[in-house]
Formats: sequence, structure tokens, C-alpha cells
Amino acid sequence: MHSIRQAFVHRLSAASPSDVSALTEVVNQGLIQADAIVAILGKTEGNGCVNDFTRGLATLALKAAVSGLSGLSLEQVSTRVAFVMSGGTEGGLSPHWLVFEVREIAESLALKNMPATRSEAPPALAIGVAMTAEFKPEEIGRSAQIMATADAVRKAMLEAGITDPKDVHYVQVKCPLLTRQRIESAQARGETLVTQDTYLSMGFSRGASALGVALALGEIKPDQVSDASVCIDSSLYSGRASTSSGIELMQNQIMVLGNSAAWQGDLQIAHAVMSDALDVDAVSDALASLGLQPGRDLRDRERNTICAVLAKAEAAKCGLIRGRRHTMLDDSDIHSSRHARALVGGVLAGVFGETQLFVSGGAEHQGPDGGGPIAVIARF
Amino acid sequence: MHSIRQAFVHRLSAASPSDVSALTEVVNQGLIQADAIVAILGKTEGNGCVNDFTRGLATLALKAAVSGLSGLSLEQVSTRVAFVMSGGTEGGLSPHWLVFEVREIAESLALKNMPATRSEAPPALAIGVAMTAEFKPEEIGRSAQIMATADAVRKAMLEAGITDPKDVHYVQVKCPLLTRQRIESAQARGETLVTQDTYLSMGFSRGASALGVALALGEIKPDQVSDASVCIDSSLYSGRASTSSGIELMQNQIMVLGNSAAWQGDLQIAHAVMSDALDVDAVSDALASLGLQPGRDLRDRERNTICAVLAKAEAAKCGLIRGRRHTMLDDSDIHSSRHARALVGGVLAGVFGETQLFVSGGAEHQGPDGGGPIAVIARF
Amino acid sequence: MHSIRQAFVHRLSAASPSDVSALTEVVNQGLIQADAIVAILGKTEGNGCVNDFTRGLATLALKAAVSGLSGLSLEQVSTRVAFVMSGGTEGGLSPHWLVFEVREIAESLALKNMPATRSEAPPALAIGVAMTAEFKPEEIGRSAQIMATADAVRKAMLEAGITDPKDVHYVQVKCPLLTRQRIESAQARGETLVTQDTYLSMGFSRGASALGVALALGEIKPDQVSDASVCIDSSLYSGRASTSSGIELMQNQIMVLGNSAAWQGDLQIAHAVMSDALDVDAVSDALASLGLQPGRDLRDRERNTICAVLAKAEAAKCGLIRGRRHTMLDDSDIHSSRHARALVGGVLAGVFGETQLFVSGGAEHQGPDGGGPIAVIARF
Amino acid sequence: MHSIRQAFVHRLSAASPSDVSALTEVVNQGLIQADAIVAILGKTEGNGCVNDFTRGLATLALKAAVSGLSGLSLEQVSTRVAFVMSGGTEGGLSPHWLVFEVREIAESLALKNMPATRSEAPPALAIGVAMTAEFKPEEIGRSAQIMATADAVRKAMLEAGITDPKDVHYVQVKCPLLTRQRIESAQARGETLVTQDTYLSMGFSRGASALGVALALGEIKPDQVSDASVCIDSSLYSGRASTSSGIELMQNQIMVLGNSAAWQGDLQIAHAVMSDALDVDAVSDALASLGLQPGRDLRDRERNTICAVLAKAEAAKCGLIRGRRHTMLDDSDIHSSRHARALVGGVLAGVFGETQLFVSGGAEHQGPDGGGPIAVIARF
Repeated sequence: MHSIRQAFVHRLSAASPSDVSALTEVVNQGLIQADAIVAILGKTEGNGCVNDFTRGLATLALKAAVSGLSGLSLEQVSTRVAFVMSGGTEGGLSPHWLVFEVREIAESLALKNMPATRSEAPPALAIGVAMTAEFKPEEIGRSAQIMATADAVRKAMLEAGITDPKDVHYVQVKCPLLTRQRIESAQARGETLVTQDTYLSMGFSRGASALGVALALGEIKPDQVSDASVCIDSSLYSGRASTSSGIELMQNQIMVLGNSAAWQGDLQIAHAVMSDALDVDAVSDALASLGLQPGRDLRDRERNTICAVLAKAEAAKCGLIRGRRHTMLDDSDIHSSRHARALVGGVLAGVFGETQLFVSGGAEHQGPDGGGPIAVIARF
Repeated sequence: MHSIRQAFVHRLSAASPSDVSALTEVVNQGLIQADAIVAILGKTEGNGCVNDFTRGLATLALKAAVSGLSGLSLEQVSTRVAFVMSGGTEGGLSPHWLVFEVREIAESLALKNMPATRSEAPPALAIGVAMTAEFKPEEIGRSAQIMATADAVRKAMLEAGITDPKDVHYVQVKCPLLTRQRIESAQARGETLVTQDTYLSMGFSRGASALGVALALGEIKPDQVSDASVCIDSSLYSGRASTSSGIELMQNQIMVLGNSAAWQGDLQIAHAVMSDALDVDAVSDALASLGLQPGRDLRDRERNTICAVLAKAEAAKCGLIRGRRHTMLDDSDIHSSRHARALVGGVLAGVFGETQLFVSGGAEHQGPDGGGPIAVIARF
Repeated sequence: MHSIRQAFVHRLSAASPSDVSALTEVVNQGLIQADAIVAILGKTEGNGCVNDFTRGLATLALKAAVSGLSGLSLEQVSTRVAFVMSGGTEGGLSPHWLVFEVREIAESLALKNMPATRSEAPPALAIGVAMTAEFKPEEIGRSAQIMATADAVRKAMLEAGITDPKDVHYVQVKCPLLTRQRIESAQARGETLVTQDTYLSMGFSRGASALGVALALGEIKPDQVSDASVCIDSSLYSGRASTSSGIELMQNQIMVLGNSAAWQGDLQIAHAVMSDALDVDAVSDALASLGLQPGRDLRDRERNTICAVLAKAEAAKCGLIRGRRHTMLDDSDIHSSRHARALVGGVLAGVFGETQLFVSGGAEHQGPDGGGPIAVIARF
Repeated sequence: MHSIRQAFVHRLSAASPSDVSALTEVVNQGLIQADAIVAILGKTEGNGCVNDFTRGLATLALKAAVSGLSGLSLEQVSTRVAFVMSGGTEGGLSPHWLVFEVREIAESLALKNMPATRSEAPPALAIGVAMTAEFKPEEIGRSAQIMATADAVRKAMLEAGITDPKDVHYVQVKCPLLTRQRIESAQARGETLVTQDTYLSMGFSRGASALGVALALGEIKPDQVSDASVCIDSSLYSGRASTSSGIELMQNQIMVLGNSAAWQGDLQIAHAVMSDALDVDAVSDALASLGLQPGRDLRDRERNTICAVLAKAEAAKCGLIRGRRHTMLDDSDIHSSRHARALVGGVLAGVFGETQLFVSGGAEHQGPDGGGPIAVIARF
């Protein structure tokens, strides 16, 4: 008897960066199989910039919890599960965990839960995970990171059973950044770095990672990218990448989300590209693919239909939003990435009536200047 | 021959807190009569908290500009024009000036621009301005400020020719705050203060001012308020007050906006009370009063129909938005008022497709906890 | 054969809030006995305010490390070792750990390391540790916390073998703070709280704890303190308390440091009270007690004589330092406690030629307004 | 009858960035001749970074005050007086104005105030002021700015009557920065810029200006500098430059301070180069040149002997201070320039017992990495 895979997504509240009580409770209730968890995306309440240690704290706490709940060792958990923490809950954004499970379900059981005619079953949410090797500091933000990321995306698609890149709707990448120590260690070996500014290194790492996704999905061609493209040529971008940099790792972790007829379940994912931070019309397009539309119903009756909203935010480098000046790039008290998350978080919270939104900052090569991809996972 | 009053509202971009170039240009083009200006509301790019000197800088620059353009002395300008600066353009909010003009128009001329049957003319935007006397530091945030504000609101209504409080849709109050020096001067005279924390004093001043508005508009009764109510009893509030505190003045400046059949023109104002920061339905209600509705048309074709959007923002003290935790009140890097402006600014920018929104922070006694009044001025 | 106790203090660099590599290395070299550790004070690089999760992360990492290195369970480590993390390395302060060890040394061995005539041995550094029970949220910042702290200080003195309060030179207290959840849980039980502002709660908790120390050391009398004194009557203070509040605990942890003839070793502690943030003369006094004096020699040749510098910092509430206005209390971008740590850290770094200084913020009832205790541990 | 020049320096408190009351008072008392003012250096309480509008506000207020007090027009004041505002009073730094006056004194009168034998008169403080032309945005941070600055320094020395560069002890330069608009205007003309990051542009402008000073004073040779040196080759620096960038101007304003036998008076200036932020020994050297030494006397009895302390501060790019890690460069909440001012401000406040210190941030090419020039003006 064959088995078929089904993806589950659970959105859980976090009372602090180390709060695993909701996860523990849901596992204890039998709603999550701890050993089926493949990824946890977390929105934590740090500044989302260089010295945001809430991401590391959350990763530490979640790893320990998954280990304790699943019986797997910490090493096994680190190998099997991607922990992708994105700091920054500016405006009204609410700290939460998105727990992704992949269960193998015996086909006879699976059929029971499906429409009578198997062939009529719509494609369902499919997940694939992969990692690159660890990067050297001098590889971050350069071609080496682009190419390794593209390879890992292809590997994750293969694992997800997705062959057509257009069935991929979201690629989450967690990537490293440069710290003083990493910069010095590379310089001690005589290497140059893409930047010596730790904050700027986050952007280069996100940018190179996004270009890797774009390459793997055929959004750009190999001969279009080089070291010189990263964070320079903003015409090159992926409409489905979401990359997030953190101090706690040195390799890229990739999670591909798409729809596949080879998977079962009642979840689907759709995406659109916001052309600027206010592009509610793009959100409407993504919702339309899922049979939903913005308005009072979505905010009220259908609110729980939405399992996850994943979006990127960044300050438009042109300094304008629809012709009006913004002040994000001239503010030396609050980083522009924090302003941008607050803005996009507000725009989306108005649409969804919900603040547990995975809005992450730094959208280099992820959508056009000032805009970015948005993906929605909903129950049908 | 009689004359009739008409109110004009101009929304002008500000390239910096002292940028008066747009004002100068529009006056030179004959679109604004400099000596008819009664108020300028400004959204400036400071932190909107205690040490926000962009408000003072803007006031200095605008006063000088109005004086230069109108031929009035600085003293005359200070007496005739209310300058109400609100700091904070978090998220995507865009610095701008809202210039309010009141012109006396000869009735024969006025009639030419009106529908054939005068009696059919809809009520039009009406403006009234008033000021309290200067407060002593120890009066700030207490009954003295409440009562003086209520009196000034009534005076401003009288000036605007509005008799029924329900025709009032927005009352802007600019009020003082405590500084170290003001606190010490009062203490030297043996007086106690409502608080010794300069930041907290801003809230007490805004709260007492809003209670004054609520009293004048009949939203609360005189026996409901006392010193002890201010910033304590959040069940008492005005749905039309917007109060903003600044370091640069010691009295309350009041501007009442409403609709009146005694005024002419093509502008009208409507308001609603947002029950929380995500309350897009309240915005819909305000728009409906003006014959408009949210959606793609409003953001595109009708965008220029909207002359001004005025809203209050604050972090819900309960710590939750629609059941989800927010982190505004636990963030020691960014003040909660800054988060709240970013959030409400984002929600409204998504609705209006526009970032020149007068979203001001600190909504003590202005709408319910976490919500606040929103007013829209539109052309019909 | 009797044994005699000896205290050791190790100052170790921290490359991040979770960096335990220096601790591991020193234990592996045999320089620290992991199971003799009684306390670790850490200066971590968060904001030192409400949402500083570096303290929790450091505690997590250090507990795990001590457990791993000592063979003790996490529970045993939590019971035996006080982890006192103080966030905030503003200015040039450098993140570091102060590891306190208490070893029992067989007397014959002890004698070998001592001056020929035992009776001539000077009093040496002595350490005592104690904890209160967990507080309810409504007890924080009130008499219950004062009294429980005083009891715990007496208990810690007893453990340290110090009978005369004047031999106590430093009392470190780690105390809790209020969060949204704690406030709501108390309110749900019908209790009132000392404040509803999470940031202010840190001050009340530190203040009540310091009054508890003052009471135990006879610096104030029992009838001088009540709920109403906390953070109000600044004439009441301890010259030897250093209290620090953190989100990660609900009880007070106390560590008493003094000199005692019952202990052996080459370390001594002295203290002085800085009357304001610039009081270098007080630092000189503390140094003089240890046979040292400020100047080029201290910064260079004698730099390694100094094992630990522990000081409190706060913004003078009067708004002045030696008659000059400071802006700490009017700054809404950077909390005054951060400014104060930067200032005192700079003053002391200039004296000691060293930035690994345990300067902690929030000096309510710890020294006079704008000043605070300073303690120095040095080798003789 | 000949006249001889005398320089006066007045240190005045500022209660806010627009507070000119102390200036007005001192002029009214006859202690300052308003028309003899040649420069006002101001330490204002903004963030000292891109969006610090306290500098512009102060300049506006001071210009108007000097105009009103002197009877000169605003245009005349702008031409005659250099207004050099440096934002940032982190730690305990106190906002203040340093008013520099140059008076022509009839020689017979001058002689009366001098030692009997004219030839014995020590050299006295001498001041020279000059300005470059306005720069184009694309010139900022490049050779054009270096060369124009060097020329202006030579011009200012000539005006000050100083021929030997070693008699120059301090060169203050106020220089421009890039804003969004300036960047776009240059790009619209097809020009490239030294950086597109507004914050980073401040450093390039300060760096190029400092290299201009070094060139004029013979500290570096013309063939050592090019576009490629700026903010790259930190071995090139001036030990006497203090450059500060602001949004409010587009040219470089230069003020040279030195000692000259051609001037009279009881003021002298000395300088030293701090090798790092803790270099109190360098401060001692500068004091020694003035016949003073650090210690209790300097902080107490001799405090009023010191008329001005001018120093530069920056975070050591190596990430270390005397071998200890600092966190300034990894902090995304507070800019490193703010940390650095707080630190150096604290070190110097401990030495001088005084917080009205003109510590300005951003020491690119002004002293070695992490250090910077310090100048002291004292009465003898």
C-alpha cells in the first residue's frame, strides 16, 4: 500500500522569543506530530537588524522543544528541521510561529478524506527543504552564494515533487550575515569582503540569495548575474523569494512552497508581486487565485480560512511612494527596514483583519524597488 | 451686498520641516490667499515625542513664510493663524502641510458658483478657531485644562456658525507638555504636577484636552470628569477630538471642523470612530457619508477627491489587537506612539493609496482603547 | 583537618550573549572549578530595558554550559548558582562575564599560600548568596519586596560569615519586572499594581530591592520605609546595593560581597558612593582603601590588579550635572538609563583604562540622585 | 595709532536648540560685542545624524539673534559669522554655544592690559575664518572637496595671521551631506556619487574635509591623497581637524584656531591626539602645554580656567578598545557615532568635571582609528 504526503501549517502565538508553550500544547493535543515538523518560521520581536538576538534565542528554544517533544536528539532536529526566524514586529505585527509539517499518510486513509474522484483532487500545498554548505565570509553577497542557493532551490523542488517552476509560489531562504569577527577572520586570511559594514552585509546576503532563487525559477538567466549585480541591478528580481539574514548560521537554508497534484490536503498557496508597499490590488490577485476577495467577509467570517500570510517589505530606494516622499531612508533613529515592515504590516493588517503576518524586511532582489512578493496559504 | 464664507483646504508636500517652497509657489500662483489662511496642520518628520524639535522648526518657518507672503507682521500671523504641528512620519507617512483658508466671498459671486436653487446647496465645510489662555505647568493634564478647552471649543463653534454639536466632525487641539524647566518652575512655587515624567505629561495634556472637547460636544457630562479621570477612565472619550502636544506652546489652540449650510463651497467633512487600529469598516462608514467607498477606484480615479485624512493612533493598552499580542508597549527602543502611527498609517495608506495622511499619535480619551477618530475631507 | 573558604573572581570576554567559549576554555584549563561557581554576573549587549532578551539568552546559555562543565543537572545549577545579567553596553562598555567561585580549601594547603603568621592575614573577599520566594506581580515595587529582600540579605551575610554590616561592600540583587501578561494576571485576580507601565515597573522593583538592602545593612530604619517611599523619597538609599531587573525571573536573587577574616585569598573589595556621575574622587577613595590610586600607573601597569568594577548609573532627576543641563530625561529615542550607563561607563573607563566594567542602569535608592555606589575588587 | 586683535570665547548654556536667551543676556550686559562675533559653535541635542534638524533650528535662531543684537542684516550675519552646529549630546553632554569674538583694540589700550614688557607677551589665541564655494553633490567626499578645503584653510590661516602650521591647534570644518534630493539631482545630470546612502555620505564629507586640513597643515603630502583615499586609508589623518556634516549647507565653512604673537589677550589653545577613546594621557599632554594637569584641582578650583574643550569621537573600526570588544558597530538601534560621543564625553567629563564639552562624532581622517584630536582653550 502506497503512502501520499500531506502538508500542514499551524500558526501559533508566541508570548516571547523563547515561548514554546503553544507548540507544546498543540503537540500534546495530538494536532501536530512533532517528528513530522520540517520547518518553523518565526516572527520574533527583536529589531530584525544586526544585533537582534531574539532570533537566536527563539531558535535555541524551539530546537530544544522539538527535541523534547519528538524524542529526536538536538543534532537530528538541526538536520531535519529548518528554523527560519525573522526579527521585527514593528507597528502592530504579532510574534508568532508558523509550523510546517509533512506527514506520510497511507493511501487508503488518504482517499477517505478526498473527493470521490481522485483525479478531481486539486493540487495541494507541497513543501521541499534543502541547505547549502556553510559559506566563507568572503562568499557572502557574491556569485558563490547565488549559485549555491540556486542549486539548493532545485534540490528542494525535487524533494517537494514540483517539476514546473510556475508551481512554486514561495521560497524562503535564511542566510548569514557578516559580523566584526567574521570580517576580521577573512581579512586575516587575506580575503576581501563584499562590505565591511555589518548592517549592509545583511542586504548583500539577502540579495545574492534572492538572485539564486530567481535563477532556479527561471525568472532571470545565468548570464544576467555576477558579483557586480548584487544590490546594484534592481531590475533583476524574484517574485517568489523571501530571504532573511541572521547572525546564527553560516549556510543558506531553503524552503520551497508550491502546489502539487502529488500531495493531498485542503491547503493551497498563491502569490503575487506587490509593485509598491500600498499595492492592495496585488493582494487581491493572490486572494483571487484562492477563491477569496478582500472586504469585510475576509476580515471577519473567512479570517480563519487564512493559514499564513508571507510578505517582504523594503523602503523604496527612490525615496517616494506613489509620488510622495517617505522618510525611511533619512531616519537615523529607526532603520528603514523597521519602517518598511511597519508599513507593509499595516497595509496587510487592514486587508486581513489580522496581525500575525510574516512580514520580513530587506527585499533586495525580491520584487521591484519598494515592493515585494506576497504569498497566502489558505484552506479551501 | 452680503458676503458668504468658503473654506479651502490645500495639501502641500514638505521636503523638510522648514520647507515652505510649495506654500510659496501656490500663493504666488494665486491658488491661496495668504491673508485668508486660518490654520496650518503639519505632519513633520521628528519622533513626535518630547524632544521633537521639527515641530518648532516648522512653526518658525511657516510663520515667517505666511508673514512674508501676506504682508502681515509675525505678531499678527501668530494671532490669526493656528499652527498645529504633529511629529512622526513612521512607516510610509509623508511629511505635508494642510493649509486651511477661510475666504469671504461676495454673495452675487458666490451664487454663480452654486446650484441654481440656493436652498438645495448642501452644507459645506466650516471652520472655527479659538485659543485658551496660557496654562500654568500645574494645570496641565487636570480639570483646569479640561474646562478651558471646552470653553474654547464652544467659542470656535460659534465662530464657525455651527450650533448643533452633531455637525462638528473634527476638533484639532494643540496642547503643551511639561519639560524639566517647567516642572522645576512649578515646584519652586510649591506646586505639584500631574506627573514628573516629561514623556507622560504629553499624554495627560492630550487626554485633558480631549475630555474638554467631549464635554463641549456633549459626548460626556460635566459631572463625569475630574482631575482623577484623566488618563484613567478610558470609557470617557470624544469621537471627534484629535489632540497633539508640543513643546513650543503653553496654551491650547483649537480648530473646529464641521459642515454648515451657512458656508459655501464644494468641500465636506465626515468622521467615524475606529474601534481598533485595523477598523477599515469605520473608514468605509466615513467614506459612505461622503458618497465614496473603499476599493480600487478610490485609490486610483478618486484619489484626488480626497483633500485630507485626519486620524489618531495609539497602542491598545490591553496589549492585544483582535486577540493577538502586539509588542508596542514593551518596546524600549521605539516608543509605542511611533509604532501606532506606523500601523494606522499603513492601514489607511492601503485604503487610500496615499501616504500624505495626518495620523497623529497619542489618542488618550480620543476614541476607545487602541482605536480613534478618523475624519475625511473630500470634494463633492 | 579543617577547611577554609576562598573566593575567586574571573573576568571573561563574551563575543555574544550566548558565548560561553571563554568559560569553557578556562574550566578546561583547570583555572575554574565548574562545581564551585556560585554566581555569574553578566554584562550583555541588549538595551537593558523591558524588551532586552539578551539577558534571558545569556542565562540559558550559561546555565547549560555550567551544567555541561560541572556534571550538575540544570535544576541543580539553577539552585546553586545566581545568574545576574545586566543589559546595556552603551558607549564603550564591553560585554563580559564575572564568574564568582567559592572553593573549600584544606587548611594545611591554605596555610602554605598565606603569610607566615596566620593572624596577620588580612580579611579576604567573602561571598554569600540567597534568594527570596517568587513574588506575585502585585508585590513588586512594594513593602513585600522590601522586607523579603532584607531577609534574604541577612541570610546571605550569614552564609558569607559576615556579621558586621560595615564589612559588606556590595550587594547585587536581580529582581523581576512587570510585563503585560503579569499585569493582566494580577488584574484578573482583582489586584492593583504599583504601575501599569512595564518600563516604569523595572524602576519600582529595583527601588524596593535597594531599600531592602539598605534596611538589612542598617542604612535606613524599618519605620522609614513603606509602599509610599518606593521611587518617591530619594533621601533613602543604600550605598552598597546594585539592583537590576529582568524579565526572566519572579524572585529576588541576592549576592553579598564583603571582606572577612574567615576567608582566605588575595582578593579584597572596597566601595564608595559617587555623589554624581562625574565623581572621580569617590572612585579614588575606593581605590585608596585597596592601596591604589588613579593615574597612568593604574591604567597601565596595575590594570590587571583590578578584577572587577561594579557601578550603578542613572540620570539625575534634577536634570542637571554640576549645574549643567543634561538631556537624558527628555530624549524619546534613547532611554535615560542607556545614556546614564554610557556616561558612567565613560567616566570609569577613563580612570581604569578598561571597558569591561559592570555598569548597570537604574539606580533607584542606590546612592543619591544621579550618583550611585561603586565597588572595586582587586588583588593585593 | 595702531590696533591689535584679541579673541574672546564665551561658553553659554542652551535650554533648547533655539534658546538664545543666554546670548541675548550676555550681549545686553556688554560682555559680548554682537558685531564682533565671528563664529558660533553649537552642541545641540539632536541625533547628530542625517535627520537631525536641531542644527538647522539652532542656526536659524542664532542668526536671527545675532542680527537683532548687532543691527546687521541676516545676509551680513550669514557672510560674517560661521555657524557650526554639531548634533548629539549623548551620555551627559550638555547643549551649549561657544561664541567666538574678534575685537580690534586700540594699541594704547591693549598695552595697558598687557605685561610691562610687550616682548614678553605670550602668543594669544588667534582666529581665522574662511569658506569654500558651494559643492555639487558629486564633489562631496572626493578630491574636489579635499582641495577646496585645503585652500580655504590656508586662507583662514592668512586671515588669522598664522604663518607656521605648527601654531594651528584646531581647525573646525562644517561640511555638507547628501540627501535623497541631492542624490537624485546629481543622477538626473548623469553624475555618480561617492555613495547613495545618506548616512554614509556624512562620513565621506567629513573625511574629505579632514584630508583637506591635513594637506594644508603639512600633515600629509598632496600625492598621498585621491578620491580613492577617502574613508579607505585610515593611516592618513589630521591631528587638528574637527569636521562635522550638516544638512543645512552645501559649502565647507572653516575656522582655524591657533596661537599668535600678533594677537593679544589671556587665552591660549593647545591640542593633543587621543590614540583611542580612553586616552586620558593625551588630555594630560594638552593640559600640560597650558600649565595645567588632571586631578581634583582641575575639576574644582581651576574648572573656570577652561573656556572650551573640543574633541572628536568615533567607534574604533577594529571593533576593540584596548583589546576589549565594543558593540558600537553592531548596534542597529543606536548609531555608532552616538555611542562614541557618549563614551568620549564621559571620559572627558571625568577629567574636567564638566559636561559642556564640544565632542563631535564622525572622526574620519581626524586622528587614528578610534581616537581623535582634542583641543583645550584656557585662560592663563
